[in-house]
Amino acid sequence: MLELRLVQGSLLKKVMESIKDLVNDANFDCSATGFSLQAMDSSHVALVALLLRSEGFEHYRCDRNLSMGMNLNNMAKMLRCAGNDDIVTIKADDGGDTVTFMFESPTQDKIADFEMKLMDIDSEHLGIPEAEYEAIVRMPSSEFARICKDLSSIGDTVVISVTKEGVKFSTRGDIGTANIVCRQNTTVDKPEDATIIEMETPVSLTFALRYMNSFTKATPLANQVTISLSSELPVVVEYKIAEMGYIRFYLAPKIEEEEETEHHVETTKPQKETKPQKETKPKVETKPKLEIKPKVEIKDDEENEPQVESKSQVESKPLDDTKAEVEVMDVE
Amino acid sequence: MLELRLVQGSLLKKVMESIKDLVNDANFDCSATGFSLQAMDSSHVALVALLLRSEGFEHYRCDRNLSMGMNLNNMAKMLRCAGNDDIVTIKADDGGDTVTFMFESPTQDKIADFEMKLMDIDSEHLGIPEAEYEAIVRMPSSEFARICKDLSSIGDTVVISVTKEGVKFSTRGDIGTANIVCRQNTTVDKPEDATIIEMETPVSLTFALRYMNSFTKATPLANQVTISLSSELPVVVEYKIAEMGYIRFYLAPKIEEEEETEHHVETTKPQKETKPQKETKPKVETKPKLEIKPKVEIKDDEENEPQVESKSQVESKPLDDTKAEVEVMDVE
Amino acid sequence: MLELRLVQGSLLKKVMESIKDLVNDANFDCSATGFSLQAMDSSHVALVALLLRSEGFEHYRCDRNLSMGMNLNNMAKMLRCAGNDDIVTIKADDGGDTVTFMFESPTQDKIADFEMKLMDIDSEHLGIPEAEYEAIVRMPSSEFARICKDLSSIGDTVVISVTKEGVKFSTRGDIGTANIVCRQNTTVDKPEDATIIEMETPVSLTFALRYMNSFTKATPLANQVTISLSSELPVVVEYKIAEMGYIRFYLAPKIEEEEETEHHVETTKPQKETKPQKETKPKVETKPKLEIKPKVEIKDDEENEPQVESKSQVESKPLDDTKAEVEVMDVE
Repeated sequence: MLELRLVQGSLLKKVMESIKDLVNDANFDCSATGFSLQAMDSSHVALVALLLRSEGFEHYRCDRNLSMGMNLNNMAKMLRCAGNDDIVTIKADDGGDTVTFMFESPTQDKIADFEMKLMDIDSEHLGIPEAEYEAIVRMPSSEFARICKDLSSIGDTVVISVTKEGVKFSTRGDIGTANIVCRQNTTVDKPEDATIIEMETPVSLTFALRYMNSFTKATPLANQVTISLSSELPVVVEYKIAEMGYIRFYLAPKIEEEEETEHHVETTKPQKETKPQKETKPKVETKPKLEIKPKVEIKDDEENEPQVESKSQVESKPLDDTKAEVEVMDVE
Repeated sequence: MLELRLVQGSLLKKVMESIKDLVNDANFDCSATGFSLQAMDSSHVALVALLLRSEGFEHYRCDRNLSMGMNLNNMAKMLRCAGNDDIVTIKADDGGDTVTFMFESPTQDKIADFEMKLMDIDSEHLGIPEAEYEAIVRMPSSEFARICKDLSSIGDTVVISVTKEGVKFSTRGDIGTANIVCRQNTTVDKPEDATIIEMETPVSLTFALRYMNSFTKATPLANQVTISLSSELPVVVEYKIAEMGYIRFYLAPKIEEEEETEHHVETTKPQKETKPQKETKPKVETKPKLEIKPKVEIKDDEENEPQVESKSQVESKPLDDTKAEVEVMDVE
Repeated sequence: MLELRLVQGSLLKKVMESIKDLVNDANFDCSATGFSLQAMDSSHVALVALLLRSEGFEHYRCDRNLSMGMNLNNMAKMLRCAGNDDIVTIKADDGGDTVTFMFESPTQDKIADFEMKLMDIDSEHLGIPEAEYEAIVRMPSSEFARICKDLSSIGDTVVISVTKEGVKFSTRGDIGTANIVCRQNTTVDKPEDATIIEMETPVSLTFALRYMNSFTKATPLANQVTISLSSELPVVVEYKIAEMGYIRFYLAPKIEEEEETEHHVETTKPQKETKPQKETKPKVETKPKLEIKPKVEIKDDEENEPQVESKSQVESKPLDDTKAEVEVMDVE
């Protein structure tokens, strides 16, 4: 028996809108500690990890661990029928093959039950190792979304470079180049307007803008976004969900080849050779990978979250599989 | 000579937006008592009846009864050119083949004349018999529109079931089932937020959501909608138009066959038999029909409207024609 | 070395949105007196002239005259990345083949550089002769935009007729005819709501609505629009840009042939001959032309603008070329 009552039902609506375009089908794992999801995107390049801790629910009953396979688009369709002020309750029987979403209007005059069939989804619960990041940028989530959108009108990839002074987002495309610098700024009126940089080593990494833009669909969830970067690790783009959890997106950096950079320099009507821009050519010495180890405990010292277990932690793929996929990542 | 001056010209704009997608061409009937329209939708499944009483106009001159055939899309195009605060005047000569819409801005600085060709449209004026309804639901029109839209994301038909406690809207589709219950609620701050149920017999009828969604385009006209249901009659969905009239939509209930219900139960990835839901299977004992009798006077005791006559009340079809069409109603 | 700093960067954004659909590629001419552009639309029917005077910039440095060829769509893409409150700086080196747009947020926390390749564009700087207009209409720009949009739902061309009482906009199409009269009105609360007519001779000219609608994309730049008409000259539709300049659109009147008018009278279901409307049939006695003389100084007594020179004032086409193109103007 599962019964999770969430007064701020709009949070769940926003979570679904954040991930439904990235992931088609996924297992929601429910245990005594929380309601969570972990899934690769359909092209196996990005990873989403969602956690809603049990303490955040008004009522949380989960008699035994459950893994519920759902089509996220269908789930989003149902949650879109909830009003923004509705209380949402998720209900399921232990042996059942359906899940019910109940929406109660604040005045209790309107009560809706949406019942959805569950699916059997093969998945492994991948452990995401604890890591030290070389640079962590916290900035207004709307600013980050705007930057990713703006750069997409010029190019396909973004180089994120962090120095002590600030974070620079760069791109280049057929029509030209763009560099946007956000300076560290901690003396703001509202904390959510701050841009804070914690840096050990300067870092410069390249990512597909297409995925970054997909991640920014979580912007309505939080005023701030945290971007954690290390030269040999996937970037983590994290949005906190009220006081109850987070949604984290992982994406491996792109390894830009020399030829590829050459290709980008071509423009339709060149009049003269442009000088290639240093910052858009990361060195090819390292081979970053989406480093995902099976059956490793999730730990987050900062927040001290309990481990999320899943019954489906079996047959996880070795590391090199994932690495291979990341390296052929195709961004159109 | 016809000259109808309507200070709240935006009402006419909203009326046209309500019906232009449902009905292509129709005769507007103008008599001393009012400006009215009655038309079947293009698939001959739903019926629209509009009445704007003469008292609601600032100036109303109609020397003799006129039936003006208009293309509603073209009329809507012209009325869309009126400002929301404009005064609208409808003008026509007795023997003429055009109608003129005049729009005056509140300051009289801008005056527009739009002249449209009239059409010859064969139509009969169908009498809509007075009826006693088993259940009448009054509820916020925006709530009803939201429910029809939400259910459309799940299924094609809605079962409306009225009991003393409230009204339930149900649907089912490939991705699951949905039930939305609105409870009677008369103790509200604003009268337009009330949900009021007058019921003699519990009633449960099935309708095509596609038409219901089309009817809800009239939502901007009124804060409340009235839904009148009887097991052997078409449902009436009524929106009042200010103090001057109404727009009513009639739709025959769907007769769901056993096979059809079976078909709905199929889902893409069934893991186990679902128990069929009682409320989505109306009994097949009755054959409801869009009961329309030719040449019958329109009477409405509640409002005491005078009869609207039309010169084109000829060659009306017998009842069974309509019934046949209703039964093969195809909702894609 | 060119460096132009514009505090109201949003003006430049609005300018680009106004002209990018009309003109693909154009030279921006920069001299000590200002930043200007003059270009025919891609079908060579309309002409755009833009001027931003140097005094309007916070900082204006232009060491020598520069003509910078740009793709306006790409430039608009880049400027769309500027925030509405950003300060925009345009930078270019004298011998360079790129232009840089720098966007600074009001708090200086975010600084963006967008670099675009310049293009070689063959163009002549056409002198636009000083002219006396028979009628000049000033009216709210939003009103003019609304009228052009509304008439487009009925017909393809607009007849603009000016008399002492007001200005009339007329059209006709398959579904009917439309006439919109705006009366002179100088006693308004806000000056931007005034409609002011200066007229020597009544004038009535026909124009393609497609171009008029394109011009009204400049509406966000100014509250008022000025329409200058003479029977033998292209109309000038002018929007002032703050205190620093203007954007002017020139369009030759259409010569409507008798046959063409006949064609318009046809409607889908005519019941009777309509009486042709006098005002939609301009006399065919005059042959208006887009009268553009090469190498003529731009003069505007009202504003006393300095001449805008350009290095590319060579090989301008004779008058008759333009005239020929105007007469075959094809408006679908």
